[in-house]
Amino acid sequence: MVPSFGATRSSASAASVDGAIARFAADGRLHAESLGDDYQALWGALGRVAGSGKRVRSSLLMASYHAYGGRDDEVAATVAAAIELLHTAFVIHDDVIDHDLRRRGEPNVSGAFLQRAELRGLAREEGETLGLAAGVLAGDLALAGAMREIALCGAAPEVTRRLLDQVTEALRISAAGELDDVVMSTGARVGHSLGDVITMEERKTAVYSFQLPLEAGAVLAGESGTDVDVLGTVGRLAGIGFQLVDDLRGVFGHEGVTGKSALGDLREGKVTALITHARGTAAWSDLSRYLGAADLDGEQAALARRLLEECGSRAYVEELAQGYLATALRTAAQTSVRPVLLAELAALCDRILRSAA
Amino acid sequence: MVPSFGATRSSASAASVDGAIARFAADGRLHAESLGDDYQALWGALGRVAGSGKRVRSSLLMASYHAYGGRDDEVAATVAAAIELLHTAFVIHDDVIDHDLRRRGEPNVSGAFLQRAELRGLAREEGETLGLAAGVLAGDLALAGAMREIALCGAAPEVTRRLLDQVTEALRISAAGELDDVVMSTGARVGHSLGDVITMEERKTAVYSFQLPLEAGAVLAGESGTDVDVLGTVGRLAGIGFQLVDDLRGVFGHEGVTGKSALGDLREGKVTALITHARGTAAWSDLSRYLGAADLDGEQAALARRLLEECGSRAYVEELAQGYLATALRTAAQTSVRPVLLAELAALCDRILRSAA
Repeated sequence: MVPSFGATRSSASAASVDGAIARFAADGRLHAESLGDDYQALWGALGRVAGSGKRVRSSLLMASYHAYGGRDDEVAATVAAAIELLHTAFVIHDDVIDHDLRRRGEPNVSGAFLQRAELRGLAREEGETLGLAAGVLAGDLALAGAMREIALCGAAPEVTRRLLDQVTEALRISAAGELDDVVMSTGARVGHSLGDVITMEERKTAVYSFQLPLEAGAVLAGESGTDVDVLGTVGRLAGIGFQLVDDLRGVFGHEGVTGKSALGDLREGKVTALITHARGTAAWSDLSRYLGAADLDGEQAALARRLLEECGSRAYVEELAQGYLATALRTAAQTSVRPVLLAELAALCDRILRSAA
Repeated sequence: MVPSFGATRSSASAASVDGAIARFAADGRLHAESLGDDYQALWGALGRVAGSGKRVRSSLLMASYHAYGGRDDEVAATVAAAIELLHTAFVIHDDVIDHDLRRRGEPNVSGAFLQRAELRGLAREEGETLGLAAGVLAGDLALAGAMREIALCGAAPEVTRRLLDQVTEALRISAAGELDDVVMSTGARVGHSLGDVITMEERKTAVYSFQLPLEAGAVLAGESGTDVDVLGTVGRLAGIGFQLVDDLRGVFGHEGVTGKSALGDLREGKVTALITHARGTAAWSDLSRYLGAADLDGEQAALARRLLEECGSRAYVEELAQGYLATALRTAAQTSVRPVLLAELAALCDRILRSAA
């Protein structure tokens, strides 16, 4: 069971968001009925990804919307569901780019289609092509679905336009962050600093996961003053903290909690703040042999973790994450951000930090 | 120089569409300026794909719009540009799925990033991962851009909703067709018939390339009667004819005209109506050795072409294409489709057929 960061959401809001996502998936499945078994399976796989997830982004949007006086839960839940679908698209396409076949402890879209291919006796290479196609197409369906939901959410035209602009901006920055990540992890750019990695994480994750929902919730509630910009800043800071904690969980977390193997990030040689910090320590010559080793075993992973602790990188990143989350809260507290939202953000930051332990 | 199928468009309409596409690319490049060299290069590559192309789809939309009395060229050009961006997204993602690195005689998005990686001394595998990422992300930016342009095109809300529904429907059917194509070409489904292949081509290409622009142009002009459905049927038929001709050009065309190597479809072992017909002839045992051979040379390709002629498959598919195009025109002529649009469709069908010669 994945612990939810989203306990701040009221259960009624959560049900509305889940309902909107379920309607998207059911509509797609219904439409797929006349279009063949494989395409129906594609919607099945897409629906499973969209239906899972921690709902961090939709919870933030609903909290921001309510804090700024929004009262039309149906409209807000539609936009919140759209942001979850955007996240679904990113997750699916990120897995395609990383050649990952599992997500949250289950086969992902590509993994499910690779299994279908194997059941039909196809060679590995053919199965991978089928998995690639399924992943690309499922992400496209989710992305277009997200844009459509926002366009037709029922808000006033000028609000809808602003939401579409915000989503477009977030999508673009996320694409830049994703590309940065690949550029660094393939070695196409060498000598990146810790600052470069944090900028990448800000672009790839913090902007669409924290800045976008906080801003969009306020805009949807009719807020158009400086609070929207402040929420954007607060969101970026909290989002960086969240991602730093996620980097720690990717190495020190337990599979039963995170839904992904704690060997995965090490085996992949993923570029994170944690690893980039360690690069500048004396432990690097010992540590580097374990990173990116596809056959890394549990014992070697334990050695790598111990090195990351002994060289101080774990503690450094924990403090860094705490610093970003604390700065996010302080920024919010010093401005006009609604106290009720501040309290929810504080609770969220607390849960994020506890999940790193 | 690629011959344009789109000579029906007035030059003013064409300039409006090209202008809207250029604005999309320029806006993206401007926004990219603070987001790093690689991301700027991504917009450069995306802009080149969006800026090329034969503009078949936008020409059809503008012709339909004008035939049904539409007068706001700016709104229509925005929607027409959006459909070109949708096509851009499909082209880019189709190349990703097919592992193609060239399109229209130039390196495509993935090809351009593979070249960048090679210039930096990266290994082939790393370069391919970078190319994969660039292709997935560029397609996402184009797809989201297409949806945004339609959402904000400036038409009445109920018209905009209908357009978004049409685009969503077309995207879904195209995804089903693309998946069908991969399923058949990887051998995940064996024993497909000529009818299966034509259905795949209808879904993958005809719906979004012909049905969608013809229907959307009429809807945008305020048409809501049976003509919209008739145009959909006419578009599907003409689109199948177009794709059959494209299959012929992929084997018998000249690279200078088609912009792609006439070896490509043979080397790839692409599933087309042409090849599927040949499968049922006595030539198959000789022909099959040439199909899907990555190292096929010009002499072998000439032998394969001669076999496809001698077994009657070339003539069969030429007649089939003529039949679909003629049925499209007859259907349009027997109904209330505006004569001016009928004349333009007839001219377009004629140009399509001549391009197969």
